Amino acid sequence: MIVVMENGAREEAISKVVEKLEENGFLIHLSKGVERTIIGAVGDKSRLADLSIEAMLSVDRVINILAPYKLASREFKSENTIIKLGDVTIGGEEIQIMAGPCAIESREQALEIADIVKRSGAKIMRGGAFKPRTSPYAFQGLGEEGLKILREAGEAYGLKIITEVMEPGNVEMVAHYSDILQIGARNMQNFPLLKEVARFDKPILIKRGLSATIEEWIMAAEYVLNGGNDKVMLCERGIRTFETYTRNTLDLSAVVAAKQLTHLPVIVDPSHGTGKWKLVGPMALAAVTAGADGLIVEVHPRPSEALCDGSQSLTEENFNKLLIQIKKIANAVDREAVQ
Amino acid sequence: MIVVMENGAREEAISKVVEKLEENGFLIHLSKGVERTIIGAVGDKSRLADLSIEAMLSVDRVINILAPYKLASREFKSENTIIKLGDVTIGGEEIQIMAGPCAIESREQALEIADIVKRSGAKIMRGGAFKPRTSPYAFQGLGEEGLKILREAGEAYGLKIITEVMEPGNVEMVAHYSDILQIGARNMQNFPLLKEVARFDKPILIKRGLSATIEEWIMAAEYVLNGGNDKVMLCERGIRTFETYTRNTLDLSAVVAAKQLTHLPVIVDPSHGTGKWKLVGPMALAAVTAGADGLIVEVHPRPSEALCDGSQSLTEENFNKLLIQIKKIANAVDREAVQ
Amino acid sequence: MIVVMENGAREEAISKVVEKLEENGFLIHLSKGVERTIIGAVGDKSRLADLSIEAMLSVDRVINILAPYKLASREFKSENTIIKLGDVTIGGEEIQIMAGPCAIESREQALEIADIVKRSGAKIMRGGAFKPRTSPYAFQGLGEEGLKILREAGEAYGLKIITEVMEPGNVEMVAHYSDILQIGARNMQNFPLLKEVARFDKPILIKRGLSATIEEWIMAAEYVLNGGNDKVMLCERGIRTFETYTRNTLDLSAVVAAKQLTHLPVIVDPSHGTGKWKLVGPMALAAVTAGADGLIVEVHPRPSEALCDGSQSLTEENFNKLLIQIKKIANAVDREAVQ
Amino acid sequence: MIVVMENGAREEAISKVVEKLEENGFLIHLSKGVERTIIGAVGDKSRLADLSIEAMLSVDRVINILAPYKLASREFKSENTIIKLGDVTIGGEEIQIMAGPCAIESREQALEIADIVKRSGAKIMRGGAFKPRTSPYAFQGLGEEGLKILREAGEAYGLKIITEVMEPGNVEMVAHYSDILQIGARNMQNFPLLKEVARFDKPILIKRGLSATIEEWIMAAEYVLNGGNDKVMLCERGIRTFETYTRNTLDLSAVVAAKQLTHLPVIVDPSHGTGKWKLVGPMALAAVTAGADGLIVEVHPRPSEALCDGSQSLTEENFNKLLIQIKKIANAVDREAVQ
Repeated sequence: MIVVMENGAREEAISKVVEKLEENGFLIHLSKGVERTIIGAVGDKSRLADLSIEAMLSVDRVINILAPYKLASREFKSENTIIKLGDVTIGGEEIQIMAGPCAIESREQALEIADIVKRSGAKIMRGGAFKPRTSPYAFQGLGEEGLKILREAGEAYGLKIITEVMEPGNVEMVAHYSDILQIGARNMQNFPLLKEVARFDKPILIKRGLSATIEEWIMAAEYVLNGGNDKVMLCERGIRTFETYTRNTLDLSAVVAAKQLTHLPVIVDPSHGTGKWKLVGPMALAAVTAGADGLIVEVHPRPSEALCDGSQSLTEENFNKLLIQIKKIANAVDREAVQ
Repeated sequence: MIVVMENGAREEAISKVVEKLEENGFLIHLSKGVERTIIGAVGDKSRLADLSIEAMLSVDRVINILAPYKLASREFKSENTIIKLGDVTIGGEEIQIMAGPCAIESREQALEIADIVKRSGAKIMRGGAFKPRTSPYAFQGLGEEGLKILREAGEAYGLKIITEVMEPGNVEMVAHYSDILQIGARNMQNFPLLKEVARFDKPILIKRGLSATIEEWIMAAEYVLNGGNDKVMLCERGIRTFETYTRNTLDLSAVVAAKQLTHLPVIVDPSHGTGKWKLVGPMALAAVTAGADGLIVEVHPRPSEALCDGSQSLTEENFNKLLIQIKKIANAVDREAVQ
Repeated sequence: MIVVMENGAREEAISKVVEKLEENGFLIHLSKGVERTIIGAVGDKSRLADLSIEAMLSVDRVINILAPYKLASREFKSENTIIKLGDVTIGGEEIQIMAGPCAIESREQALEIADIVKRSGAKIMRGGAFKPRTSPYAFQGLGEEGLKILREAGEAYGLKIITEVMEPGNVEMVAHYSDILQIGARNMQNFPLLKEVARFDKPILIKRGLSATIEEWIMAAEYVLNGGNDKVMLCERGIRTFETYTRNTLDLSAVVAAKQLTHLPVIVDPSHGTGKWKLVGPMALAAVTAGADGLIVEVHPRPSEALCDGSQSLTEENFNKLLIQIKKIANAVDREAVQ
Repeated sequence: MIVVMENGAREEAISKVVEKLEENGFLIHLSKGVERTIIGAVGDKSRLADLSIEAMLSVDRVINILAPYKLASREFKSENTIIKLGDVTIGGEEIQIMAGPCAIESREQALEIADIVKRSGAKIMRGGAFKPRTSPYAFQGLGEEGLKILREAGEAYGLKIITEVMEPGNVEMVAHYSDILQIGARNMQNFPLLKEVARFDKPILIKRGLSATIEEWIMAAEYVLNGGNDKVMLCERGIRTFETYTRNTLDLSAVVAAKQLTHLPVIVDPSHGTGKWKLVGPMALAAVTAGADGLIVEVHPRPSEALCDGSQSLTEENFNKLLIQIKKIANAVDREAVQ
C-alpha cells in the first residue's frame, strides 16, 4: 500500500500515519519528494480495509498495490481449477454448454426443452424457478414447484441442472434440487447469500454484477472461497454502459482478464450479454475464442411464447446451428465442445 | 405500448401480433407506413412483461409508453407522501438530517456520536450494524450487538434510528431495534428483501443502486408499496460512472426527477455520493436546493479512527458548520432545517 | 510516480527501470517488499508521458502521484482567476448568466431574444452560428451570417456575446464577432482547436466532454493556458452515463472539485445537462449552491418553434422566474446575481 | 416517428402537433387511449431533427422509429461494401491486418517496423504523425516529417499506409502521403473534419468515439457518405465504462451490430481497446470470430522505448505468434488472413 501525503504535509501528520501503520504490523518505507511525501507500507493487506488511513490529517490518497483477493488469484494457485460434476468437468479441455429457458414455465415446457438440450449434445440444463424481475407485476417464477420440475427433467434426460438462488433462506432448498447454484448479477454483492452458498458442497456460478469491476467480481468469488467452498466459477454476462442498442455490453476482455488473474473457470452468458438473439451466436463464438470455459445460453422452442427473455432466446434450430460453429471454433483454439 | 414491425413484415406476422395482444385484452390501433407497420396497444400494462412480444416473428422493437410503476407515481397520488415517526416528519416542510457513523464500532463510540448528533439539532441517527463490504476480510459490523447499542443510543438521546438490513431473515430483528429500515444500494434489486420489509410497519429508505436507472429505483419502491407498506422514501447516493475522482457521481437531477415523477420523499447521501469529505458540504447544500427532503450524512468524532468510510466522514466541527449553511439554504427555498 | 514491479521481477529488470528513470533525471526511492518491489520516482512529470515505463519487462503498473496539470492548478496559483470583459467579470462575486437560443435562426429571432435577455438583467447572450449536429441532415447553423446577427444583437442591447467555434480555420472569424469563444463538449479534446484559440486574446469557455474525466477536462484548459491564453473558464454540461431519463447526467460534484483543484471560473449548463426544461430550474439553482460562477442557459420565446434543443429551452416567463430564485440562492451563499 | 402526449393533454394541444406535422408533409395516425394520446407520423425523417416537437405544449416524448441514417444502412444497400486499394481489399474474404507503431518516431524506427510488418505478411502499415495527446507536454508527433517517413517506408516495403488526420486544414496534406485517412476516436464527431475528408478520394476509417453509441458512430459514417465519399470503414476501439482494469471496454457486440445494420467494413483495434498487450491477442482473435473485417494493431520492436502506447504494443515475436492464430481462426469462420 502507498500513502500519498498532501503537498505541505507537516512532519507531525506524517509521523502519525507511519505510527498507525507500524502499530498494525506494517513495514514502512518513507520517500520524501520536493512536492510530496510518500509512505510505502508492506504488511497484512486484509487489515487495510479497516484502517481509514485516508481520513488521517494531510493524507491525499491511499493506493493499493496488491490485489485485495488471495484465494482466487493465480499467484495463490497457478493451475486451473477444474470442477467435476459426475462425468461433467468445467474448466478443463471441454467447453461446457448450459442451455435452457429463462424460466421454468411448466412441466411440459421443461421436458420439451430438456429433450432439445439433450439431443444437442449439451450436458447442463439451465432454467429459473426464482426469477428476479424489475417489476413486482411480472412473472416471478414457479418457486419450489419449478425446482421439482427441473430436477425431474434433469433426471429424465441425464442432464446436470443449474438454477438461481436468490436468498440465504432458500439455499438449502435449491441445493437439494440443483447441481449448480447460480448467483445472479443483481446478487453478486449480496454478501449474506455468498456466505450461505459457501457452506454447501455444490459448485457456485457467480454472475458479474451490472456495474461490478473485474476486481469486485473476483472478490465475490473470494467470499465463497473464504467460506470454504472451492468450486467457484465466474460468469460474464454484460455490464451496463451508455449503449442502449444492446441490453448490456458483453465485456469479453473481462473473460481474458479473469482467466489471467484467477484460476477459476469462466463462463459467458451471451443471451443476457446482448439481449438480442441475432447477436447471441457471434458473441458466443467470440467468447469461446477469448478463452471462455463454457456458455450459458437461453433456448426456447417458441421464444415468442416465453414468459421472459423471449427476445434473446434461441430456437432449437438456431441453437443447433450455433453448436456446429462452436465445435469448429473450439477446435481452432485446441479445445473441445459437445462431442 | 407500441410494437414496431420490421421492414417488410408479412401480413401474417402482423396478424399474429395483433391476435396475441387482443387475446390478452389489449385494444389495438394499426398504422401502416411505407416502411414500417406500427401497432399501438392499450391495456393492462402489468401483463406486458410476460408476453414476449419482442420475440415474435418480424417484430423489430417494443416500446413502452407508460411508466411501469403505478402506486409510486404522481399520477396515482398527487400530494406528497409525508412519513411520520412520532414528532419527526419526513417529506414535509422540514428537511431531516440523518447523521452518524458508517458503522457502530462500540457502545462508547455510538453514545459519543449520538451526543454530537443530538446537540447539532438533528433528529435521526444513522449507523451500520450489518455492513456490506467488498472484501470478506473487512470489518463486517457488530451485528445484533450493534443494533442494541444503536437502540440504547437513540433512547438515551431522544433520536430516531435508521440502520441497514441486508437479508430477509434479519428483517424482524432489525425492525425490532430500528425506527427506519434502510435498503442498501447493493440490495436495491434484492427482491426477496423488498418483499419482506414490505410486511413490516416501518418506514423504508431505498438507496438507489450503483447502476440503477431512475425507473428501476422507483420500481424498487413499487415492490414495497405493492407489498402493503406505504412508508417509502427514496435515497440518491451516487451512481457509478467512468469518473474516478469521486467515489460515485451524485446525480442530483435524479432527485428533481424523482420528486416530479413520484410522491415519495427523497433523501440524499452526499457522503457515499462523493466519497470525499471536502465535497460533502457543497453537495449537501446543492441537494437541498435541488429539492431533497433530507440528508443522510456520515459523521465521526475522529474519522481517521473510523472502521469504515473515514475519508468521507465529517468531524463534529465540520458537521455543525454545514448545518448552519443548510439552515440558510433551506430558508432560501422556503423550507426549514434543524430548528 | 510509482512503478510497481510484478511479483518475482528479477534484479535485472528492476535495475533497467531504475536506470531509465535516472537517465531522465528522476530521483529514485526503491522499496522491496516480500511480494513486490516498488520504485518511487521524483522528477519532471511532463516527461513521464513519453517514457513508456509500463512497457518495460516485469513492470506491473505505473501510478501517477501528481496531477498532470500545472498552470491550471490551485497549487500553482492560489487566488481565483477573474476574467474581465469590459464591466462584466466572470469568476468574481457576481454569478454571470449567459442566456439565449441554441441556434441563431434569424435576425428577428436574435433581436427578440436579446431583448428578453437584456430585460432579465443578464449580461451575456449565447447563440450558435456553427452547430455540431449528430445528423448531417439537421440544421447546421447560419454560419458567418449568424455571427453577424449575434454581433448586431449584442451591440444593440449592450450584451456580451458567447458562441461556439468548431474548427481551427474559423477561430479568427469567430473571434472577430464574439466576446467569448466556446469550445463544445465534442471538441474538448480537439487539440488543434485548443492550440489555435490559445493564440487569441479572448476568454475561452471549455465544455466538459461527454465522457471526459475531471482531470482530462482540466488538461484541456492546460492546453489553452500553456498556449499563452490565461482567460479560461470551465463549463460542466453533463456527462454520459447509463441513465436515459435525462439527456446527460449533470455532475455538480465536478463543479466543486474543479473549484478546489483549479483557480479557474466554472460555469454550469443545466440545459444540456438535463435535456428537459422542467429540470433546468432546480439544477441551475443547485449549481449556484455548489459554487458555480455562472450559468449558461437556453432561452427561446417559443421553444416549440426552435430549430434545435426546444425541449430544453426556457420560455421568457420561466427564465425570469428562475432569475428571481437565483438571486435568493446567490444571496444565501454570499454572492450576487443579476443586480 | 411517434409522439406521446401527456396524460390529460387537451384537444387543442393535440391538434397543434398534428397540424405542425402535417404542414411538414407527414402522414398522421392518431390513437387515443384511456390514459394517453399517441400520434404516429410517417414522412421525411431527415426533417425531424429540426421540428422541436418535444417542446410543444403537452408533448411527453418523441420516439424515433426509424434509424436516422440512410446511406450507411443495409436497407439502402444490402451487399457488403468492399474497398479496393490497389490489390488490397477491405471488407471482402480477406481479413486485413494493419500494424505499426503508435507514433512515427524516426526514419530508422519506421523502416525497421515496416520490415517487420512486411515479413509478417500484413499489407497495411499504421503509424501516427499527428498525435492527439491528453497532455500538452507529451510528444505530439513528428507532423509532416512523420508523414514523409511513413510514405517512404510504405513505398520501400510495398505496404499501404494508414495515418490519422486531426484537423480540416491538414486533410489535403495527409491525403497526399497516406492511402487511408483515419478519424480518431476523439474526432468522431468533429463534423468539419468529417465533411472535409468526404471531399477526397481516399478510404476513411472512422474510430468509434469513447462514449459514442453505435447509432452515433454510424451517423459519423453517414456524414462522409453524404459528402460524397463511399469508401468508409468503421473501427471499434473500445468505449469508456466504469471498468478501470482495461484502458477501454472493447465492445465486440458493436462489431456484430454494425455488420448487421450497415454494409460497411468493420475493423477492430484491440490495442486501444484493451490498453494491455497481454489482452491484445485473445481480443484480436475474438474480434475476427465476431465478424471483423480487419484489425489495427500496435507493434513496436522495443515497446519499452516507444514514445507512446508502449504498454499496449506487441513485440515482433508476439505479433507473429498472433498472426498464426488469426489464420486458424479466420479459417474456422471461412475467411482468410495473411496468406
